[in-house]
Amino acid sequence: MENWKDLQKALVQFRNERDWEQFHNPKDLALALSVEAAELNELFLWKKAEDADKEKIQEELADVFAYAILLAERYGLNINQIVLDKIRKNAEKYPIDKARGSAKKYDEL
Amino acid sequence: MENWKDLQKALVQFRNERDWEQFHNPKDLALALSVEAAELNELFLWKKAEDADKEKIQEELADVFAYAILLAERYGLNINQIVLDKIRKNAEKYPIDKARGSAKKYDEL
Amino acid sequence: MENWKDLQKALVQFRNERDWEQFHNPKDLALALSVEAAELNELFLWKKAEDADKEKIQEELADVFAYAILLAERYGLNINQIVLDKIRKNAEKYPIDKARGSAKKYDEL
Amino acid sequence: MENWKDLQKALVQFRNERDWEQFHNPKDLALALSVEAAELNELFLWKKAEDADKEKIQEELADVFAYAILLAERYGLNINQIVLDKIRKNAEKYPIDKARGSAKKYDEL
Repeated sequence: MENWKDLQKALVQFRNERDWEQFHNPKDLALALSVEAAELNELFLWKKAEDADKEKIQEELADVFAYAILLAERYGLNINQIVLDKIRKNAEKYPIDKARGSAKKYDEL
Repeated sequence: MENWKDLQKALVQFRNERDWEQFHNPKDLALALSVEAAELNELFLWKKAEDADKEKIQEELADVFAYAILLAERYGLNINQIVLDKIRKNAEKYPIDKARGSAKKYDEL
Repeated sequence: MENWKDLQKALVQFRNERDWEQFHNPKDLALALSVEAAELNELFLWKKAEDADKEKIQEELADVFAYAILLAERYGLNINQIVLDKIRKNAEKYPIDKARGSAKKYDEL
Repeated sequence: MENWKDLQKALVQFRNERDWEQFHNPKDLALALSVEAAELNELFLWKKAEDADKEKIQEELADVFAYAILLAERYGLNINQIVLDKIRKNAEKYPIDKARGSAKKYDEL
């Protein structure tokens, strides 16, 4: 199963069984996403990337996906479409010949 | 198209064309994810959720997905599997009868 | 005691007694600051501002100050000077007559 | 001048001249603090710590202090007191003999 629609259904069912939709306004969902992203980052704190605990990374990354998917659901967004749209925009901001091998932001290229 | 794998391929191709894999160690990918999550949150700052700009939300959420998908790729994780695993764990931490209608953390239930 | 120099000394002493300077490069200090800011934000998650736990807020805010003060120390920055400089810059970006009563960003005023 | 109170006065005056107190509930202040912390972190993205732009760091760190100070003001907290209280707590969680030279969290020491 590699389809995000199935995940979205599972997450919505989990939420609805607990009557949590009342708390899930987009502002708090975005906040929750940020908190989970920070917990993921904490796993790398004071460390080299390769010394971080892969199992915990997996769990925190799952939480990040969960809130991101719920946010997409809240706004009726098609995840593939919005990411592909963004890739297209970024391809214009970061043309291959200018951006290759550079970590600079587009406005510094 | 509603498939993570297709998105992952598109993102990896975009990255490789620009020779950016050298920068994409997991610690910096997680940092990038956090920065994008903060940009998403900024769209709600000083506002009610319903007054935030939906088009910008879509763009920032796409960035969040992009880095989360690249992180999953970096660790060889199956996104659906890790999220479903987490849902199962959370179902134990938040049993329906205790958690229904409550926004408390599991250790306060 | 309302002087940040005294705090800085106490924080540096705490760090040096534990031989932690080796971990405190600015990139990780900034990451730690972000993690603490997220823990502070989590106290407001799914809640109205007035329902957050004031005692915990105090603790998380203290952590935020600790890392911010250590970062300032790392770069030899005078906290009062940098904040007052920023207030002056912001006064130009947000002139009173335009910004009064508005939550808009300076580029939308 | 190395005094929090003077900074707090300057920040409150800046805010009041623009009639922004109405937006500055603690939940949004904490959110703003997190956004500024992320902007600070972005300066280190894809880079070694020593390659980050010191001038921009100074500006973003100033923003972090500004919101942290406004939050302390909002709750009537004495900054030095809350940080010293936290140092005392941390000294118990991280006793010198156990914590020296280790980046582990207190629950792993």
